[in-house]
Amino acid sequence: MTISDIGSQATTPTPVKASKADALKTPAHRSEKDARFEEDARDLHRILPASRKVYIEGSRPDIQVPMREITLDPTPIQGVSESEWEQNPPFYVYDTSGVYTDPNVTIDLTKGLPKLREEWIKERGDTEQLSGLSSDYGQARARDISTANLRFTHIDKPRRAKAVDGKVGNVTQMHYARRGIITPEMEYIAIRETQKQHELTDMRQHEGETFGAHTPAIITPEFVRSEVAAGRAIIPNNINHPESEPMIIGRNFLVKINANIGNSALGSSIDEEVSKMTWATRWGADNIMDLSTGNHIHETREWLIRNSPVPIGTVPIYQALEKVDGVAEDLTWEIFRDTLIEQAEQGVDYFTIHAGVLLRYVPLTANRLTGIVSRGGSIMAQWCLAHHKESFLYTHFEDICEIMKQYDVAFSLGDGLRPGCLQDANDEAQFGELRTLGELTQVAWKHDVQVMIEGPGHVAMNRIKENMDLQLELCADAPFYTLGPLTTDIAPGYDHITSAIGAAMIGWFGTAMLCYVTPKEHLGLPNKKDVKDGIITYKIAAHAADLAKGHPGAQSRDNALSKARFEFRWDDQFNLALDPDTAREFHDETLPKDAHKSAHFCSMCGPKFCSMKITQNVRDYAAGLKTLADSKSTVTPQSGDLATAEHLIKKVDTQLVEQVGSATAEEINQGMAEMTEKYHKEGRQLYKEV
Amino acid sequence: MTISDIGSQATTPTPVKASKADALKTPAHRSEKDARFEEDARDLHRILPASRKVYIEGSRPDIQVPMREITLDPTPIQGVSESEWEQNPPFYVYDTSGVYTDPNVTIDLTKGLPKLREEWIKERGDTEQLSGLSSDYGQARARDISTANLRFTHIDKPRRAKAVDGKVGNVTQMHYARRGIITPEMEYIAIRETQKQHELTDMRQHEGETFGAHTPAIITPEFVRSEVAAGRAIIPNNINHPESEPMIIGRNFLVKINANIGNSALGSSIDEEVSKMTWATRWGADNIMDLSTGNHIHETREWLIRNSPVPIGTVPIYQALEKVDGVAEDLTWEIFRDTLIEQAEQGVDYFTIHAGVLLRYVPLTANRLTGIVSRGGSIMAQWCLAHHKESFLYTHFEDICEIMKQYDVAFSLGDGLRPGCLQDANDEAQFGELRTLGELTQVAWKHDVQVMIEGPGHVAMNRIKENMDLQLELCADAPFYTLGPLTTDIAPGYDHITSAIGAAMIGWFGTAMLCYVTPKEHLGLPNKKDVKDGIITYKIAAHAADLAKGHPGAQSRDNALSKARFEFRWDDQFNLALDPDTAREFHDETLPKDAHKSAHFCSMCGPKFCSMKITQNVRDYAAGLKTLADSKSTVTPQSGDLATAEHLIKKVDTQLVEQVGSATAEEINQGMAEMTEKYHKEGRQLYKEV
Repeated sequence: MTISDIGSQATTPTPVKASKADALKTPAHRSEKDARFEEDARDLHRILPASRKVYIEGSRPDIQVPMREITLDPTPIQGVSESEWEQNPPFYVYDTSGVYTDPNVTIDLTKGLPKLREEWIKERGDTEQLSGLSSDYGQARARDISTANLRFTHIDKPRRAKAVDGKVGNVTQMHYARRGIITPEMEYIAIRETQKQHELTDMRQHEGETFGAHTPAIITPEFVRSEVAAGRAIIPNNINHPESEPMIIGRNFLVKINANIGNSALGSSIDEEVSKMTWATRWGADNIMDLSTGNHIHETREWLIRNSPVPIGTVPIYQALEKVDGVAEDLTWEIFRDTLIEQAEQGVDYFTIHAGVLLRYVPLTANRLTGIVSRGGSIMAQWCLAHHKESFLYTHFEDICEIMKQYDVAFSLGDGLRPGCLQDANDEAQFGELRTLGELTQVAWKHDVQVMIEGPGHVAMNRIKENMDLQLELCADAPFYTLGPLTTDIAPGYDHITSAIGAAMIGWFGTAMLCYVTPKEHLGLPNKKDVKDGIITYKIAAHAADLAKGHPGAQSRDNALSKARFEFRWDDQFNLALDPDTAREFHDETLPKDAHKSAHFCSMCGPKFCSMKITQNVRDYAAGLKTLADSKSTVTPQSGDLATAEHLIKKVDTQLVEQVGSATAEEINQGMAEMTEKYHKEGRQLYKEV
Repeated sequence: MTISDIGSQATTPTPVKASKADALKTPAHRSEKDARFEEDARDLHRILPASRKVYIEGSRPDIQVPMREITLDPTPIQGVSESEWEQNPPFYVYDTSGVYTDPNVTIDLTKGLPKLREEWIKERGDTEQLSGLSSDYGQARARDISTANLRFTHIDKPRRAKAVDGKVGNVTQMHYARRGIITPEMEYIAIRETQKQHELTDMRQHEGETFGAHTPAIITPEFVRSEVAAGRAIIPNNINHPESEPMIIGRNFLVKINANIGNSALGSSIDEEVSKMTWATRWGADNIMDLSTGNHIHETREWLIRNSPVPIGTVPIYQALEKVDGVAEDLTWEIFRDTLIEQAEQGVDYFTIHAGVLLRYVPLTANRLTGIVSRGGSIMAQWCLAHHKESFLYTHFEDICEIMKQYDVAFSLGDGLRPGCLQDANDEAQFGELRTLGELTQVAWKHDVQVMIEGPGHVAMNRIKENMDLQLELCADAPFYTLGPLTTDIAPGYDHITSAIGAAMIGWFGTAMLCYVTPKEHLGLPNKKDVKDGIITYKIAAHAADLAKGHPGAQSRDNALSKARFEFRWDDQFNLALDPDTAREFHDETLPKDAHKSAHFCSMCGPKFCSMKITQNVRDYAAGLKTLADSKSTVTPQSGDLATAEHLIKKVDTQLVEQVGSATAEEINQGMAEMTEKYHKEGRQLYKEV
């Protein structure tokens, strides 16, 4: 594999682009939001510090897997010319930001992203481009004058699987995998998940506790295929979303995170949602769910999918409910079916379907403290009660499979009866539904349709593992996709944290994707800051889980950052962080001067005393003893005896202290740069003297 | 026990108090900080919303245990007059804020807090007031003109244990406990820990996994005594800090949290530290550690102790190092001993002592990725290397016990060799030191001196439990007091979160107190916002641990908040939260109008559709079926058959939807109040109609 350098500077959009992008804004928003929108446009393109986008080429030139390369500073060696300092190789991280951070690609939100997967899909020859939209609703919206000003205008005609022998075709990745076919998507994912492990310089890592997960050191395309074939992993990958960069969700791969966005009747416009999506993927969202329930759901979704480098999931029942003016019992299979086709032809990669909410489970929630809190679950429960029969999601489940396999839409089987508080966790209603989801998984697999299972919710720490173990057992290792769980109910405003605790644990136990929770959970709609807080918090939970599982190479980033921290390479410490901007900003609050970035002490200890400096003395001491030990066997005139060694060690320690020991806060704020240089110059003279 | 109502309104300080408080500020700070300081003064007195300070009286009138009483709204019942709505009893929470939130107490920071424990200490008759300070340094500072302007002026002469038969006396709570004496402190703690459990209305709670902890449903004074006698719990309780409200640290009690504050040579003034301390206790810090390393350590500490309602801990070696101008190898037992006495007579409640850093462990850290990161550990390591012998902390350990038992200062045996990154976790150096701390615990207990053990640090999730299990085994169940641990190294700027994950888990496993980490960890000194973020995050971790352990009554607050959430009692949901201010602020960002506080839907779903509303329909349905079932046995004319019941249920559901279904975002923002009222009036008519 070779890396094609495509430059290291990010570009900001030209005025032209910005004005085109204005088309996203509904007239009502134009005036008030220009400033924020310009800022969004800048965010859209800015690559993180010391980083550049690189691509790893696969077996064919059109497989170009993106990674972010972080350049690191050399490690200073005292008394040695800078050219001979220890070089720290660049570090490569998984990159979900798409071509927005590729300065060689011109971004135009009104035209959408390049169609990365289009050729792969076409060359398989098992799909056809339709003459137009198949759904009644899609056609109606396309004709609707009133929404013309909101509409995304560069829409291709949708593709669908060709019929085979009079039966509907099947173009799911699972269908290929089960026939032994390794798709370009699978190879792309193998390269992406391997993360250049074989090039790592520091592979030190502790053994993990996998709880039965099995991840090879190097992920091969064949391994990806076998996991998808077994149903242990899914590749959300609608043929009508060729803009998306292939990724995989399964417990034997890196733990992924999902970010929920979407407007409601109470606010948020299309441009805000697109901006939240690009913002979320920039910070590491592997998937986006559009949970819009307000106006223009169809148009909002089109804008999101055309501009999203990651898979997009939805809950189709939300839109179906809008179509019947919010009266749940008026929902019909026909309306729902049309909605599935409408969304499948837009390119939605997975559907949350609450087909496990059975009539007999509904009364089991009556004595709960907080009843049914899932929106989809509540809709279906009300429908079941009103009609006193099982929902069309359950009775038409195979019809749904028939639709989804023609576009390769994956199931996210919804936990409509998940607990809304600790008291309601792990109850009959929740686990009854989970059992049904396990049965439906087998039905979907019969059709080679990919499946993941949604999980709770609110669960105390000691009751989390039961959820994971039962899911693996009942759902035959289908990937688990959980919301948190929140480990306490008493911290609204901080539920990204109450849930990150549960998310890290259940991720360790085997959950494949964690649905983020923002600080606004239970309180309101997240803004951009909330989205970022949710993302970073969940990147932490997912990485903590990878580490605990002993995922190959997971600890390498921790090692690189810790080495930078120990060596006072402040910039590297920031740049290797999940959020370099915040790390740098916090540091500069206390030590604003650039000189401090290379200061050999930090603000917590101050200049008089630095624990890391003393640790270096420990190493010099250990080295001194070794020199001494060696000298006992081979006569080397320049080596002294133990007393000498100790004397010299003590002397150099004293020197070190004297250099900075006398400094006052004033002197520091004036002469930091000189002091640091002096330290570099006169630093550790011990071995020179010997 | 009776509750003495002492009013429900908080007062703000008079200008007089504010100007007195100005005395805290060093001249340099006067001008620039007035605004912030005024704000601090307001924060100092404001009690949280819908709350009032109440006291529970013990067996004697001078045992008055503070709690915060949160008043809750009634639960609306449709079609019933407000007077008959379901009343929700007030909820009581553990209160660490001290008398600052008691409007009947006049606060004057320049005079310090009332001496709550003074009489208890005197009446035991085993202590005497000294003629003056015993430490050379304390005496010198008292004479020092240059610091006169900074000095706290209302200092009593210190107390010390009377000698017994020519031997130094012993006034530790452990000493009393082992002789079967139940002190007022112990009774106070029993009432405080029980938290009025016996008055709870909703005791629903799931069984926990205790990992060997044993907590009775009601904490009795005798249980407190027995735990202290066994060494499983400590009461940090220096006789020279009579202002502190007794609290206990042990795995069979509520998990506690500690907040670190303190200045460094790089900044922060005395008033800032006092302000951080009152701010931290206001939000729930059970303990404060003053880690000052900069100027005026002695004076800063005096201000903190005299005004602190919670125990104060320190790391005496930091100040000792200042006394030798930062040259570690110049430290001597004499300097350290004088520092211990100086601080013990000021009232420090526990000392972190790194006596486990033995010479033979130091070279074990040489090959670590980040070496020795503990400041105290580094100081002692350097001392051991320079002198090539064991430290005076180890060789004089019994002398240290002799000092501490005369004032009842507890040990916090420091983990000087804790890991600074995941790679260095659970290694020979760390566990070697832990073994030594276990041996020293037995020595301290021989003197009836209370002990807790400090723990890491940076540890991946799968390696945390080993730390807890080993500590319990090696240290004979002495309380464990851990910093985090951080579960990944890659998120500087978010280490309150990386560590809350580990803290919640190790708290569940048995850690008695969690030392908070702020977002500024590794980057700089925390400001007030960072301190609050750290506190709330750790209150979450501690509570999540109590829940997982199944601590009696722990879930009651979660239940009360969840019930409020389900019933749309927004104000109660905020007021029961750990941080009511932030919860309310976040809610108001999306739904600013007061009317929304009682709106029967929330911003996440909007008015057209609300899952909780539908859950209520489920309950009506279940109730309808029950009515029906009953009607089968007893002939009741007004009850219909199943079809009728369903018809009525469907009808009312439709009514509900119609009421709000047609609303547009505009209408909502205009007519929320009316809609809500209409909902209340015409709400659920089903049973009226029948």
